[in-house]
Order: sequence, then structure tokens, then C-alpha cells
Amino acid sequence: MWVRNAWYVAGWSNEFDAGRVHARTIIDQPVALYRTGDGKLIALEDRCCHRFAPLSMGRIEGDDLRCMYHGLKFAPDGRCIEIPGQKLIPQSACVRRYPVEVRGSWVWLWMGDPAAADPQAVPPSLALDDPAYRLKAGHLDYTAHYLLIDDNLLDLTHLSFAHENTLGQDMPQWADERPRMLPLERGLRVQRWIRNHRPRGFMRKKAGDCADVWNSYDFVFPGLFLQRTGFYPAGTAERSPNAEPPEPPLFYRVDEQAVTPISARASRYFYAAGARSEDIDPERLDRLFAVTQTAFGEDKALIEAQQKMIDLDPDRRMIPTNSDAGPTRFRNLVDQLLATDGTPSSGTAGLRPASL
Amino acid sequence: MWVRNAWYVAGWSNEFDAGRVHARTIIDQPVALYRTGDGKLIALEDRCCHRFAPLSMGRIEGDDLRCMYHGLKFAPDGRCIEIPGQKLIPQSACVRRYPVEVRGSWVWLWMGDPAAADPQAVPPSLALDDPAYRLKAGHLDYTAHYLLIDDNLLDLTHLSFAHENTLGQDMPQWADERPRMLPLERGLRVQRWIRNHRPRGFMRKKAGDCADVWNSYDFVFPGLFLQRTGFYPAGTAERSPNAEPPEPPLFYRVDEQAVTPISARASRYFYAAGARSEDIDPERLDRLFAVTQTAFGEDKALIEAQQKMIDLDPDRRMIPTNSDAGPTRFRNLVDQLLATDGTPSSGTAGLRPASL
Amino acid sequence: MWVRNAWYVAGWSNEFDAGRVHARTIIDQPVALYRTGDGKLIALEDRCCHRFAPLSMGRIEGDDLRCMYHGLKFAPDGRCIEIPGQKLIPQSACVRRYPVEVRGSWVWLWMGDPAAADPQAVPPSLALDDPAYRLKAGHLDYTAHYLLIDDNLLDLTHLSFAHENTLGQDMPQWADERPRMLPLERGLRVQRWIRNHRPRGFMRKKAGDCADVWNSYDFVFPGLFLQRTGFYPAGTAERSPNAEPPEPPLFYRVDEQAVTPISARASRYFYAAGARSEDIDPERLDRLFAVTQTAFGEDKALIEAQQKMIDLDPDRRMIPTNSDAGPTRFRNLVDQLLATDGTPSSGTAGLRPASL
Repeated sequence: MWVRNAWYVAGWSNEFDAGRVHARTIIDQPVALYRTGDGKLIALEDRCCHRFAPLSMGRIEGDDLRCMYHGLKFAPDGRCIEIPGQKLIPQSACVRRYPVEVRGSWVWLWMGDPAAADPQAVPPSLALDDPAYRLKAGHLDYTAHYLLIDDNLLDLTHLSFAHENTLGQDMPQWADERPRMLPLERGLRVQRWIRNHRPRGFMRKKAGDCADVWNSYDFVFPGLFLQRTGFYPAGTAERSPNAEPPEPPLFYRVDEQAVTPISARASRYFYAAGARSEDIDPERLDRLFAVTQTAFGEDKALIEAQQKMIDLDPDRRMIPTNSDAGPTRFRNLVDQLLATDGTPSSGTAGLRPASL
Repeated sequence: MWVRNAWYVAGWSNEFDAGRVHARTIIDQPVALYRTGDGKLIALEDRCCHRFAPLSMGRIEGDDLRCMYHGLKFAPDGRCIEIPGQKLIPQSACVRRYPVEVRGSWVWLWMGDPAAADPQAVPPSLALDDPAYRLKAGHLDYTAHYLLIDDNLLDLTHLSFAHENTLGQDMPQWADERPRMLPLERGLRVQRWIRNHRPRGFMRKKAGDCADVWNSYDFVFPGLFLQRTGFYPAGTAERSPNAEPPEPPLFYRVDEQAVTPISARASRYFYAAGARSEDIDPERLDRLFAVTQTAFGEDKALIEAQQKMIDLDPDRRMIPTNSDAGPTRFRNLVDQLLATDGTPSSGTAGLRPASL
Repeated sequence: MWVRNAWYVAGWSNEFDAGRVHARTIIDQPVALYRTGDGKLIALEDRCCHRFAPLSMGRIEGDDLRCMYHGLKFAPDGRCIEIPGQKLIPQSACVRRYPVEVRGSWVWLWMGDPAAADPQAVPPSLALDDPAYRLKAGHLDYTAHYLLIDDNLLDLTHLSFAHENTLGQDMPQWADERPRMLPLERGLRVQRWIRNHRPRGFMRKKAGDCADVWNSYDFVFPGLFLQRTGFYPAGTAERSPNAEPPEPPLFYRVDEQAVTPISARASRYFYAAGARSEDIDPERLDRLFAVTQTAFGEDKALIEAQQKMIDLDPDRRMIPTNSDAGPTRFRNLVDQLLATDGTPSSGTAGLRPASL
């Protein structure tokens, strides 16, 4: 089951260069993206209404897109405006168009009813070229249902184990203590202190031998993850136990990620990581990003293996622990969205474990 | 669903050299082909009746074929004539035999009731070694249902778009004007003029700066395509609007093709292209054939993508256009054949779009 | 359908080195194997009870195994003994443990109810380091149901055909004469003479120009094959027609094999071949083993092709021959085991041909 009425990340905006038609699949729907003459991004159903050839194999003609099988031409609103050798164009000759928003550095598609698309509802994110930050970006393709990736991001307990040599090094606190959670519109805010952390490498120069680390992220459907991690002098957590301190941090790491469901067993994971511009130079950003990518490879290996185990015995019940609070609350939210706006997915349905 | 009572092309006759057993699959049925001592081609079910080992992994012994798993031996008529260590051979010990005809340069198999096989019903085709022509041949394997390839061949509108840089270069007429169609036994004849065509390269030397091109092909179930394309002086179409002119053409291209269904999502496409011997030398034939193969690669990319789009949403209705007349008439004919002679296919059934 | 209450070979014992967790799948069940500090092999369900990450991606901690996704720790008996950040551990937090026996040179797992596991019931086999023999070992992975491999081993008729250039060279007797069969607990003993055999190569030096060959093997569920092949002076068969002669053979070949079902279309085939130490030197063992491996490749090609033919038309009935006595008796035995102890398998059910 898919939630159609939502903004989904189709890609980094710099993926969609002009002069080419780009094929993407989101919640089992094929989409062709191209830019009109003035650079505006258009997203149409990637399937000609005539014989179902992909429009992404077609040709951009001015603002329009022509299917290069039998030559039907479509306007940016999805209407067929030319059928070779035929004067009359039936009204049914059209393809779906998807509302597009370019916001931050992502291209967002509204996969449901266009009339319901609210540009204000696009979740906030950082732009890669924001001068206040220095960021690097990438993406990974998963052979797994997107909710397994969401689960991973909503329970950072796994940093102490899955990432014991990368992002969670010397940080047993991720597993030992539970964060605070606050409800957001279609999501959750997750916040915590990691006290008395001993930074390594160049981080030690920035944040000292012992730091209190404030971690806060917003997680919004379908998988937007916007995280800020501030390093403060040890003792700061004592003074500001439940909130980000008012003073500027010694080091301020930022992460933004987005999970996009492609099909029941395929997902794309977009990520950018970095810090304030004054905190990091390009070479250190390279190192921070390299460690981050190693960690994301660790997640991918675990989550794809987890998916295989689920598929081997789809009816088995998971045993919940205290650390599941985030995934559990978010899955309940997804259930509510599906109840009002669900559309069947391809492939097996029964992904959601009964215990959540 | 498959039509069993039909002649299907198993391959070019020169594929089936003596001394080896050749495995082919047609309409989901595995077939083993071999030559007897006097060179006669035999086609048996490629599945020993005992434990289902393929007879194509067996050994030719004189005119017979021995399964090389447990040694059962079969006569050319499919009867088991030897079971090692056993005197009595049950009557049920036999494999199916398929009537074979070698005609033109193709090997044809009758996949239905042998008693109904009529060698007269093998459709006409050219022999590759016919001295009147100079031809080159090949084949392509498709991951697609054979009817999608048939659709392609029955609507040459696509030449102006899919092949705008190859076979349909500078020929918008394929898309802009509709051909005449005449019924054939189990097929269609499709005819048209392409007026005022401007030939390129060596064709210009043969056919002049401006030619009227007569194109006529016969298309017969399951996918036989026999095409003649004659180049005439401009103005000829005016004088002979509805028929091939009586005078010899300046250049006469010939194409023969055959589509063979393997399974619900696999098909083999056989093709030969060339011209009258006096029209072309071997080097120019090489060039003509190279362009033709490039064009067939264009078709394959489109049709396999089309198949994926169909499978993503099998119940979606296609929107018909005027150019669908050929595919529509042929699909109706296939429906009639299936209604009297249908046999279930493997894989998904619902290929045929509701609108055709 | 799988028989759970049985000992299955998980691998050669030397595959399971200490310090690593080894993943295996048997009858659709994922298993993680590791050694405790004192070298004892432990086999646990390879799926953490929490979120189903494989424990084989985990970390050995003393005698215990920790899941490296969210850190749950399991004792060798499968009980969860630590959940990070949580004091109370629910009783339901555990994974299955599988009884393990190391016997001969194989690791055996009991895949059913641990309380029913009888170490006495592990079938006998040879140890690779038994000083009385010189043996070489290997394994092959099949894309086929295990019972097709069992069928192969229970009807050596195929040696005369499938292995006419390897193991069955110049031995038409395998196909022409039927062996004796005796019932065993969960299996069969199969015995026969191959009279007047003409050995080749170094075997001729050992066994003479003409030998009577005594062949006897025990075959026990799920696919244990323990074979002894003694070469005697011609005429010995006459004197001892129904039993292994009392005198020592001129040459004594030994083979042990085990078939382990992984899933409905995947199996692992373990094998060792050799002879008495006095019969063979390492270089000749290499040659004997190379021929044996060639023969096993012949079997694999046939059996995987047979599987494809079965899957192409699963309801088709096989035509039995006299040589099927072994497979038929064994399949009846498997049916009895399934009737009392069957558990559904993944994938298609209908493998068993109706005629057996």
C-alpha cells in the first residue's frame, strides 16, 4: 500500500539537466521529467497513452514532449496535442502530470491528486549551496521496502552497534539512553544529549577532549530526515537538559536525508552531510563524508539482509523493545495515512510486522 | 494463450547442422531437433518421458535419439524403442513429435495436432540463396510478448519516429498517411506509396533524386513479414495509385522476417534484408544490413520498455489511434484463432490491451 | 514440504572456523553457526527476534552472540540475555537453537524439535582424516530440489549413460542389470556385482585386466550416500553372488556424499571420494577425484535441466521404468516421513511426479 497524497523526493535538482528526459519510478508509478525552454521542470506519466512506450525515450520539442514510438506529442499539462496522421484528438488522449516543486536542493513530486498538492507542505530542507554550510551529497539504492529504512532512521540505538566503527564510535549512549520525542505534522522530532563524549581527530580540536553533544532531528513522511548535531563544552547538558542551548555550539554538524519508495522492494536513499562553513574545510568534509558513506553501507547491508529474512517468513512477529518507540509511533502515523489514502503496491503486501 | 495449430519458424535452416541435437522452445514447448543419417530434420519433444531430462542433451544414434540420463532411445516418430535392462516397453513411453518443413531458408514446426499439419499452409518466403536476390540474415531475442513485435510490424507509422535516423529517415509519410489493407488467409496485405522521397547515398544513384516508393508487405500469423519496396521515377504513383506498377523498379529492396513466440515474455525475431542481385553489391548490402540492424535495435529497446510498462499496470487501457488499424485487425484474427484453438500460456495472461 | 525431524549436513566441519559466524540455510530455515571459547559449535536461528537482522552479521562475545543492529545479545541456548537500555527481558525474546553434532567430518544439524534430537541417529560416515583411507572432499550447489539429486543417487543406471566417459566408462552393466535392495532405517541398501569389468589406467595395475566389482551403498534420509566399491579377481562374483566376499579386495574405493535441501529449488551436495591408503597415492587420488568431479558436473547439468523441464509443466506424469525401484521406494519413505512430520516449503509444492 502506498500513500499517494504526499511530496516525494525525485532526486537532487542537479540530476535533472536540460535537454534530456529523465526516468524515475516512485510508488510504482513511472515518471518522465524534463525541462521546458525556460528551465521549468515538468513531470509526466512515463507511459504514452497510446501503446505505453515510455515518454522518457521521447524527444523534447520546445515545451512539449513527443513519444518517439508513433509520434504522439504531449503538452506540459499532459494533454496530447498531436497525433500524426490524425486531426481529431480524443479527450482521453492524455497522460498524468505530477506537480513539481524544487525546494532546498531537492526535486519534489506530488504523487496523488494534483488538486490536493500544497506547495506549502513541502518539508523544509537545506540547500546544498547555502553559504552558511559546507555539504556533500549522494544517494544509495536499496533492495528493501522504504519503511525498513525509516525504521532505521527513527531508532538511532543502532549507531552504537551497526556503526561502532564509524558514526557511533565510542558512543554507547545511543543504545543505553532513550531520546525525547515530540509529535510533528506527519512526523516526529527526536532529541537527546550524548554527554561526556570524547571526540576524535579534527573534531577534538574543534570540540575539546570532552563534549556534550546535542542531537535533534525532524523526521517527516515519507522519509525526510533533517538533523543537527551540536558540540558543546562538557556540562552544557546539565544546564539545558531538554533543549538546544542558546549559545552557539563549538561544532555544528548537519545531515539531511530523504527516503523515496520506488516499489515494494526498491527504495532510493538521498543524503547530504556537512557542517557550518566555519567548522569544516573541504578536505575535512571529504573525510567526514567518507565515514558517513561507510556507515550508510553498513545500514544497507543490514537492512537488505533484514528484508530477506522478513520475506523468508513474512508472518513472523517481531519482539518489540523500548528502543522501538520511534518506529512504532511513525508506523502508526503511516497506518493512519494509508487508511485514508492507501493505494495498493506491487509485490507482497505483508511487510509491516504485526508487533508494530 | 497460444495458438497451437500453426506453422512456427524454429530457425534458419543453416542453424541446424547434423551431428548435434538443437534445443528450441516455441509457445512454451521444448523441442529437440536433429538430423537423421540422410539429413532429414526431426523434431521431438525435448523432454524424455521417463524422468524429463532434455533429449537435446542426448545422443544421435543413426536415425534415433537416445536420452543420456538413463538411456531410453526414441525413434524419429517419438516412440521409445529401447529401455536399458527392460524388455517390455509400455505404449505410453513416447515423446511428442512435431511435423517439420524446411521451406525458403526457414525450418518450420507445426506445434499442434500432427494430423492437422498441412505442408501447403507454410507461408511463402524467400530462400537466402535465391540467385535473384542478395540477402543477409540474423536474429534478435526479445524479452517481450510476440504480439508486441507483431503490432510494431503491422503499423509502420513508427518508421518516422522510432527510426527517424535509420529506416525512416526523411520519410514523414509513414506517419502522416495511412496504407491500404487487404485481408489474407490468417493475415493482412498492407500497401502504400511514399511519394517524392529523396533517396540518400548509393540509393540516389539507383533511384534518382526524387522517387516514388511502392511498399507492400504480407503479414501472416504468427509473425511472417514479407516485404517488397520498389523505387520508381517520381510521378509513377500518380499513374498507378493502388497497385505495384507493371514496369520494373529502379531499385527493389526485399525484407523477410518472422516472429516466434518462445514464452509469455520471450520471443525470437528472425530477419533477412537485401535487394535484387543487380541492385546491390556485397559491400553495399553490408551497409544496408547494418542500418537495418541498428533500426531493429531501436525497435527492441522500445518494445521491451513497452512490455515493462504493460506489466507495471496490466489492466490499463490503451488509447487507440487511426494508425492502429493493422494491429487491431490482426489481433482480432488472433482472437478468432485462440477462440477455436487456444492453449494456456505460462506467465501472465492479460497481455492484450482491452482497447484492441 | 520438509521433514524437520532429521539430521541434516550443514557442512564439512573444517568450514566452520572459530571467530566467525557462519550463515547457512537448511529447509528454508536460516542458521547462524559459531564456536564458543572452548571450540564447541553452536547453531542458532539466523534472525534476531527483535527486527530480524541476521545474527550471522553479529559479533561473538565469549560464548554468546550479539546482534549488531540494535545490540541484543543471545546465549548459546538461544535466550536473549541483554537488551541495551532495557532492564527487563521478555521471555519471548529468544531465537531457536538447533542441536549440533560433529560426526565423521560433517557438522549435522537437527532441524526439528530439539527434544526429539537423538545423537545416536546421526548416520555413520567416514572421517576425512581416517588413517585407513586417503580422501578428497568438495561440494556443489544445485539449482534443483534435493529429491532429484536423491533420485540420481538411488538409480545408478545413469552411470552407463550420463557418465559414459567418466565413472561409468565401459560399464554397460549399470544399466543392463538391476541391483538388490534391502531396507534400512530411513533408507535403503543397494548392492550388486559388475562382472568382467576391464579396468583402465592405474586401476588395471591394482585390479588386473578383468575384475569382478562389488558395489554396495547405504542411502539414508535426507541424502546420505556411503558407498564401497571392491575390485576382486574375475570369478569372485560367481562364488559370492549376493554378498561382499570375505577376502580383502584388490582395490577398495570409497565414496561418501550428502545432499542438503536449502530451499525448494536450491540444494547443496557434499562429496568425498578416495580409497584405502594402501591403494592410492596422493597424485592418483587427485586424478580419481578430478574424474569424479567431472562426473558430478555431468549430473548437475542433467538434474538442473530436468528441474527446468519439471517446472515448465509441473503436472505432467513421468513414465516409470524398472530402474526406478530405488527412487520409488525412497520417495515412498519420504512420503511417510512427511505425513507424520511435514512442514510446508517455500516455492512450488508440486515437485513429486505423480507416477512415483
